Amino acid sequence: MADALKIGIAGLGTVGASLVRIIQQRSNALAVACGRAITITAVSARDRNKDRGVDLSGITWFDDPVALAENADIDVFIELVGGADGAADKSVRAALARGVHVVTANKALLARHGVEFARLAEEKGLLINYEAAVAGGIPVIKAMRESLTGNNFSRVYGIMNGTCNYILTRMEKEGLSFEACLKEAQRLGYAEADPTFDIEGNDTAHKLAILTTLAFGSEIAADDIYLEGISNISIEDINAAAELGYRIKLLGVAQRTETGIEQRVHPTMVPLDSVIAQVDGVTNAVALESDILGELLMVGPGAGGNATASAVLGDITDIAKSRPGAQQVPVLGRPAALLEPYRQAKMKSHEGGYFIRLSVVDRAGVFASIATKMAENGISLESIVQRSQHTTADAPVTIVLVTHATMENAVRKAVSAIKHEGYLIGEPQVIRIERPKTA
Amino acid sequence: MADALKIGIAGLGTVGASLVRIIQQRSNALAVACGRAITITAVSARDRNKDRGVDLSGITWFDDPVALAENADIDVFIELVGGADGAADKSVRAALARGVHVVTANKALLARHGVEFARLAEEKGLLINYEAAVAGGIPVIKAMRESLTGNNFSRVYGIMNGTCNYILTRMEKEGLSFEACLKEAQRLGYAEADPTFDIEGNDTAHKLAILTTLAFGSEIAADDIYLEGISNISIEDINAAAELGYRIKLLGVAQRTETGIEQRVHPTMVPLDSVIAQVDGVTNAVALESDILGELLMVGPGAGGNATASAVLGDITDIAKSRPGAQQVPVLGRPAALLEPYRQAKMKSHEGGYFIRLSVVDRAGVFASIATKMAENGISLESIVQRSQHTTADAPVTIVLVTHATMENAVRKAVSAIKHEGYLIGEPQVIRIERPKTA
Repeated sequence: MADALKIGIAGLGTVGASLVRIIQQRSNALAVACGRAITITAVSARDRNKDRGVDLSGITWFDDPVALAENADIDVFIELVGGADGAADKSVRAALARGVHVVTANKALLARHGVEFARLAEEKGLLINYEAAVAGGIPVIKAMRESLTGNNFSRVYGIMNGTCNYILTRMEKEGLSFEACLKEAQRLGYAEADPTFDIEGNDTAHKLAILTTLAFGSEIAADDIYLEGISNISIEDINAAAELGYRIKLLGVAQRTETGIEQRVHPTMVPLDSVIAQVDGVTNAVALESDILGELLMVGPGAGGNATASAVLGDITDIAKSRPGAQQVPVLGRPAALLEPYRQAKMKSHEGGYFIRLSVVDRAGVFASIATKMAENGISLESIVQRSQHTTADAPVTIVLVTHATMENAVRKAVSAIKHEGYLIGEPQVIRIERPKTA
Repeated sequence: MADALKIGIAGLGTVGASLVRIIQQRSNALAVACGRAITITAVSARDRNKDRGVDLSGITWFDDPVALAENADIDVFIELVGGADGAADKSVRAALARGVHVVTANKALLARHGVEFARLAEEKGLLINYEAAVAGGIPVIKAMRESLTGNNFSRVYGIMNGTCNYILTRMEKEGLSFEACLKEAQRLGYAEADPTFDIEGNDTAHKLAILTTLAFGSEIAADDIYLEGISNISIEDINAAAELGYRIKLLGVAQRTETGIEQRVHPTMVPLDSVIAQVDGVTNAVALESDILGELLMVGPGAGGNATASAVLGDITDIAKSRPGAQQVPVLGRPAALLEPYRQAKMKSHEGGYFIRLSVVDRAGVFASIATKMAENGISLESIVQRSQHTTADAPVTIVLVTHATMENAVRKAVSAIKHEGYLIGEPQVIRIERPKTA
């Protein structure tokens, strides 16, 4: 049997502690599967005295992850510190500089420095594995980097934030407001005290940026992503969607178009009978559309200590199974030097169906006016639903339009024209429709 | 750049021809992704003169796949011949004996000889990759062999036969009979002229046997699988299932129980709102339940020249990315020498819910008699639906029972007791219910 693979784990939060526990409890099974033992030789965290329910005796302790990366007796550095800069960044650089492989679960770090890290790793024949950084336990990185080699991707999309999917699922199932569901998510630990990063789509965007690079071979461009969160989705939208045969999900979508690559994160209508529409609660899902394979959808846990630790462990065992330096999987699917500059497609050129919900005053000619503005902008409609509330004589009327595939620019112009007519009450709601390739 | 990886392809049917075309058209992209070129140096097929729409000039032709495996200048032997014995078997043995890696899409071959092949390969440090053998383009082998290392599996199940899923989907959507849908599947090329192997579950069983070994570390036991096909599923079953909130799918299920491992292929009721219930037509799906990760579901194309070729290509590029002999992924998840004997759980000990549809004569006391037989066997019922057709005075009555979790043995006894009462018309229909871990 080959020498043990020595690993150092920086960060002992939920994921790190799970990882230590699993590696210790399953050392025999792991050694059998990998042909060599996996030994934790060093760990680092802020507080040495905290009880994490794991036995750290015999493991070298570092207060500072950078010191661990620089000095510990390790073959692989496991970065579970978090954050796009600071200690996470410094420690990964230190590990690569020393010739040590890296495993990380840090999407923010990769979204910012991934291309540079890939270059550093490839210069030295090192591996960077990061399965846990996107959609937690779902092996989407492996599928894209290894299984689908040779495929040309057309679109990659998914539900990649459990907080948002939990909130949208509860809103629909229980008829509750966004605010009520957010509070419930916070109570259950599915949402942070400051939930902005999740509900406004930033977290999804970091993950999407990594998938975009793997799919299209362009440099990571996390700052060039169109972002729209779920905080203004109302129960009326959800109900109207259901009535028309759709369900609302926060999707991250990367798509090749004639004018460049679209990267967008926004609430999306998906057909009610599609597989992805059934993905409920904190569960994640990623769909890969490519020309040889067709469509592959993977559904699984997107977060949680154990699920994330499972993905990190898969990354570690991949390194254990290869002889150090022997395997040549390019970090970002192709060698970093061959990545192309990101060519951003403009959102106003986006083509697709749209759901438009308008609240209007109950007045003769309004319906005709709306239909005219749509027609003037070349938008053809799949369905129109008008509903009066009839509670009082001058109660507002809700009009819901679903368009056939059209240009975002046309929709924006039509909605803007409608706003100028003076019969709208409040802001119009516009939600994009996304259709899986196979229904 | 490293030397080109030289491959020989035995079998130029739909998959083989797709593979040749893709490798030739994408040679540059593949070389970039793998760090070395992939070169087809040899092919073999029965008829040299057939037009396959691919350019075979410069490639050494062999009439006999065994001769190719024995003599061609190759690093990897790609077996696309088919069949559990004969040329497929002989050529794989010849390749391994020479020290050549093997890629195969042949589930029947692996179901019969997989353990022996794994032993031969591991003795020589060779790889056998076989992603395409189970669920076509879905990367389930990679997920189990590489991503989920360290996980203990509890259950693995899936829709692994497109023909059956196509037939069941059309029956439900269009209210057609099994026979009508089978004919349509044959017309469209989704079913063979002799469809027995697909519709009676043998094809699913071969795939399941491989997954069982990867999940539970036991030797492949393809002959010890409980088999029940879909040919006696009627439109009445499908309608009754829908009414009770279920859909019928042909599943292969491998499950660890207290008395051993269950391997079973049978029509199965899955909850209508589960993700797997939405998997329609020829699409396949595989669910992996394990203790660290939780539940992972993968949905994708289970057959077709391109999708299968994509999986084969992924297997080839994995070998291209590793230096020959350097990677140590055990063929069956753990070294063949460490596989355990298969310990079969008896079907009569299977625990689960059951759907039972009975056609009975319309006579006082029948309903009470059925309820009594169930109670006498300790079976508690989740729901009972009785429906008279009222077409004529003595028209049969349909009774549908759904049980809570119970033992198969109890169900068999109860049904047998009911049969002895003399009021049944025709055979009772019994269909097992399978529930995903997360709904």
